Amino acid sequence: MKATILTIGDELLIGQIIDTNAAWMSQKLTALGISVLERITVPDEHGPIVEGIRYCLRKSDIVLITGGLGPTKDDITKLSIADYLGVGMEFHKEVFDRIKAIFAPRNIPLTDAHKDQCYLPENVEILTNTMGTAPGMLWQHEGKQIVSMPGVPYEMKAIMTEQLLPRLAQNPDRKVILHKTIMTAGMGESSIADKIKDIVDGFDEEVSIAYLPGLAQVRLRITAKGDNESVLQSKLDKAVELVCDRVSDLVFGYDEITLQEALQEMCIDRGLTLGTAESCTGGHVSHLITSISGSSAYYKGSAITYCNALKQKMLGVKAETLEAYGAVSEQVVEEMVKGALDLLDVDIAVALSGVAGPKGGSIEKPVGTVCIAVGTHGLLETRTILSSKDRSKNIAYASNQALNMLRKYVLQVK
Amino acid sequence: MKATILTIGDELLIGQIIDTNAAWMSQKLTALGISVLERITVPDEHGPIVEGIRYCLRKSDIVLITGGLGPTKDDITKLSIADYLGVGMEFHKEVFDRIKAIFAPRNIPLTDAHKDQCYLPENVEILTNTMGTAPGMLWQHEGKQIVSMPGVPYEMKAIMTEQLLPRLAQNPDRKVILHKTIMTAGMGESSIADKIKDIVDGFDEEVSIAYLPGLAQVRLRITAKGDNESVLQSKLDKAVELVCDRVSDLVFGYDEITLQEALQEMCIDRGLTLGTAESCTGGHVSHLITSISGSSAYYKGSAITYCNALKQKMLGVKAETLEAYGAVSEQVVEEMVKGALDLLDVDIAVALSGVAGPKGGSIEKPVGTVCIAVGTHGLLETRTILSSKDRSKNIAYASNQALNMLRKYVLQVK
Repeated sequence: MKATILTIGDELLIGQIIDTNAAWMSQKLTALGISVLERITVPDEHGPIVEGIRYCLRKSDIVLITGGLGPTKDDITKLSIADYLGVGMEFHKEVFDRIKAIFAPRNIPLTDAHKDQCYLPENVEILTNTMGTAPGMLWQHEGKQIVSMPGVPYEMKAIMTEQLLPRLAQNPDRKVILHKTIMTAGMGESSIADKIKDIVDGFDEEVSIAYLPGLAQVRLRITAKGDNESVLQSKLDKAVELVCDRVSDLVFGYDEITLQEALQEMCIDRGLTLGTAESCTGGHVSHLITSISGSSAYYKGSAITYCNALKQKMLGVKAETLEAYGAVSEQVVEEMVKGALDLLDVDIAVALSGVAGPKGGSIEKPVGTVCIAVGTHGLLETRTILSSKDRSKNIAYASNQALNMLRKYVLQVK
Repeated sequence: MKATILTIGDELLIGQIIDTNAAWMSQKLTALGISVLERITVPDEHGPIVEGIRYCLRKSDIVLITGGLGPTKDDITKLSIADYLGVGMEFHKEVFDRIKAIFAPRNIPLTDAHKDQCYLPENVEILTNTMGTAPGMLWQHEGKQIVSMPGVPYEMKAIMTEQLLPRLAQNPDRKVILHKTIMTAGMGESSIADKIKDIVDGFDEEVSIAYLPGLAQVRLRITAKGDNESVLQSKLDKAVELVCDRVSDLVFGYDEITLQEALQEMCIDRGLTLGTAESCTGGHVSHLITSISGSSAYYKGSAITYCNALKQKMLGVKAETLEAYGAVSEQVVEEMVKGALDLLDVDIAVALSGVAGPKGGSIEKPVGTVCIAVGTHGLLETRTILSSKDRSKNIAYASNQALNMLRKYVLQVK
């Protein structure tokens, strides 16, 4: 099956936003064995949209359209699709009822723009949008398919994931492509590649590996591509097992699990509670932990002590320690951990203090220096890391390092 | 002058990399008054490249091609351009001399692949690449222009900045395009459109507006496009002024400023210190605030009280209040604000408690319900919002709402 992607939006053509949707859609389609032949971006205008659809369908079996659906876009995409199909517009009560149900509890009155959203080109199959008001739409047309989705990334992703991809996965004549991603933390891409080189060199030709580096993490995506699913599955399983055995201390899970999800599972299994004390990361560690549903089962809270006075008042860090070693020091984060254990009544605490940048660095403690301590009352582990990126990346990098330290710490707990 | 962009690369079509080049090029061309009409992405294959060039030049005066030039790409782009132009290939000694000069000091021997890079389609004008070996290329063809550049972002940017943009800037018949983006929070896209409808209807035909919605925010991009820059500037300024006057309570700044940047500026100006007390947002508000360099000048810290016991212990929320109204209640967030003011020694505090989801909702307090209070000891403002998205979006939405409440609260402070 061959696909094309048509993205609509003046904001793309003036470069105000980067088209991240297209890459995400391409990945998902490719993973299903569907080739993306071309992508095209057109403005919010009738002529180019109709011509774009024609161009795409001449090349592919399915065109995925995103954008141009908001209430203030004048419904230009829908009208263009209707023209291309040669059909009229039809009111859809189920769409209207969904919009009413979304707005009623918030006492927001419906406007004409909302009603206009319920007129869709005839013969549509609705792809429910669980994240917004504009529905996804699908038409069968002369043996080909046209799909239209909103351009808001999380709405498009919800429609793709919940509605469209499950349908496309049923297509019988696609190649089998199996993936498994090994999630690692604690070593860089090149060092991992060195460490598993002989294993990768020995892979069957249907099996390949891609290294996908992140902040303090590397994902190893193993792919098996061919015709026979069960043969591929066993080749994939074997490859994954070999790699995981070699780098077992780095592996925290599979298939896009996050460090905070792995940590949550480990802590809940062991009946451990966790708290945090953050300075330079300003709540990011706490945010990552609580971004996971169910985190309240083990995570209790945090003291964000962005100023030194609060490090003393909330966590009992000693004035002499701050004076002698500075706020960014292993001594201070160790006192922060001890204070957090008392204040938050938890089994394990982590503390971070560092220089996020771009200002505040010195020769001894350059921008990107972060001290991290993890521990209980009895046992502390402390380290100092150095990142060299911008402020937001330094914060994210230090947070991931802290989560990985927590993970390895919890592993030792019987 | 009208342009199109043709990007070449299999890696784009499988979604392995996000096309950031196209947005950058679009911005630079738009700033010169050159409209980018469409963008198209094709694979590293002869047929689609030739057809892509034809498609683009039918629509525009110039096509900018990136990608498909690397030594492992088999020169497919150059051969396709030569075919499109109906010309042969020609050796360029000046390109060869440049490559020799680059490699000689590093003692890297030249390979056949390097020599191949010096064969270019006839009639080319070379656009020197100061960042790499593959030259930029330009052809005049039937009154139109074809430009080909490497896909490596810093090489493409160097060629554009040093060679191409200065030439295009001399084009006398280019249009002027001016933009200003008004950043708003506190009202949805449709309601804003309703509220300023008469103003927008009255816009001069050279002026237009685009609504770009985000989480609890809408960007209003006003564009003026025409011939006379100073006339356009005054039309743009007038339009921005009219819109801002109408929705002044929603406007927090211009041109991609964030709520937390606006808040930081306002607090520092007024000499106010800030602290937060978070439950359901788990540190996200604190993270947003501290993501801005210089935030330590006004932001002191936070109590993340993810469990009720810490709401009582750290913030002094009364057991009776939790019992009578539940943790997600305006009464509790008001007590959290009072506790935070004392604990954190700040002038203003904000507190949030809600149901981030996907679990934990009830009929009275469905998933997405968040209570927010902002205040000082004397004056509290409290509201309950309802979002209907997934966990991460509910957290982000509530955080932005809290930042906007803070902004409006600080505005009242003399």
